[in-house]
Amino acid sequence: MKKSIAIDMDGVIADTETHFINWYEQEYGVRVTKESIQGLEENAMFPNKEAARRYAFTPGFFRTLPLMKGAVEAVKKLMEDYEVFIVSAAMEFPQCLPEKLEWLGEHFPFIDWRHIVFCGDKSIIGTDYMIDDHIKNLDYFKGTTIMFHAFHNVNHNHHQRANNWEHVLELMSEL
Amino acid sequence: MKKSIAIDMDGVIADTETHFINWYEQEYGVRVTKESIQGLEENAMFPNKEAARRYAFTPGFFRTLPLMKGAVEAVKKLMEDYEVFIVSAAMEFPQCLPEKLEWLGEHFPFIDWRHIVFCGDKSIIGTDYMIDDHIKNLDYFKGTTIMFHAFHNVNHNHHQRANNWEHVLELMSEL
Repeated sequence: MKKSIAIDMDGVIADTETHFINWYEQEYGVRVTKESIQGLEENAMFPNKEAARRYAFTPGFFRTLPLMKGAVEAVKKLMEDYEVFIVSAAMEFPQCLPEKLEWLGEHFPFIDWRHIVFCGDKSIIGTDYMIDDHIKNLDYFKGTTIMFHAFHNVNHNHHQRANNWEHVLELMSEL
Repeated sequence: MKKSIAIDMDGVIADTETHFINWYEQEYGVRVTKESIQGLEENAMFPNKEAARRYAFTPGFFRTLPLMKGAVEAVKKLMEDYEVFIVSAAMEFPQCLPEKLEWLGEHFPFIDWRHIVFCGDKSIIGTDYMIDDHIKNLDYFKGTTIMFHAFHNVNHNHHQRANNWEHVLELMSEL
């Protein structure tokens, strides 16, 4: 039986960071640079602290997320050797559930509904591997973790870091 | 740390059987009795084979499901000793995702979003216990299983059967 991987959406296959920065610039006319937010918590990435959370509750935000570079090709590649599940902690934002399904249908049509999971707390996930950008998800996971690089995790180094999707494939090929 | 339970929705905390029978009667004027469907597969419960699946794709079906008798009280009781997750294989029917969230908000407002999971294949679920009516879910589960009684599982006896929610509480108190 193939081993299984849980792959996160936001910040991993979808480029939420760029999307947040674009939306903030559109609303406030201020472009926050990626360099300036390194090491900050997600709720501290913008001068206006409530903006990011408000966007996450805004219809259309999740449906229009840009793809993370290299994600489609890498997920396809991983599916050759692993049972791949897309696992998104989406329940906090109910309006995003159909949006996330549509987004996956557009960008990852080769992933069927059997392999999509929307949850709250990821401690319930029992796959062999987890690729995620949030230590709150990785810390409670019982299997092998890969921390996908993100501005909010640069100061955490207790999980194997992957800098990008090419790096994920390198790491998985060494396991 | 509390042990964790994954509790199914349809056929376990929601009385899908009664709902299907009511909807079929309303459309076809024929009331199928519960006795007559014992041991049948779900897709064979009605003379018109496509009806049940069509209802599952009909907006409003999942939002208006009646509660399973004793479910609210039993889930509350289990939450005293266990971390309870509601886990529904809902992805096949995308329109039901917001309906299921609303239904849970109405009938189980004490379950927060962190403890709700919508998935396809339940093999990804890593809780200690699973309460479900479908052997396809229970068979691939690595923890302890309880099979909630349903017309379609009466001929399967390789999981511990619970006849109703009172019986679930009895069984869990003996574990």
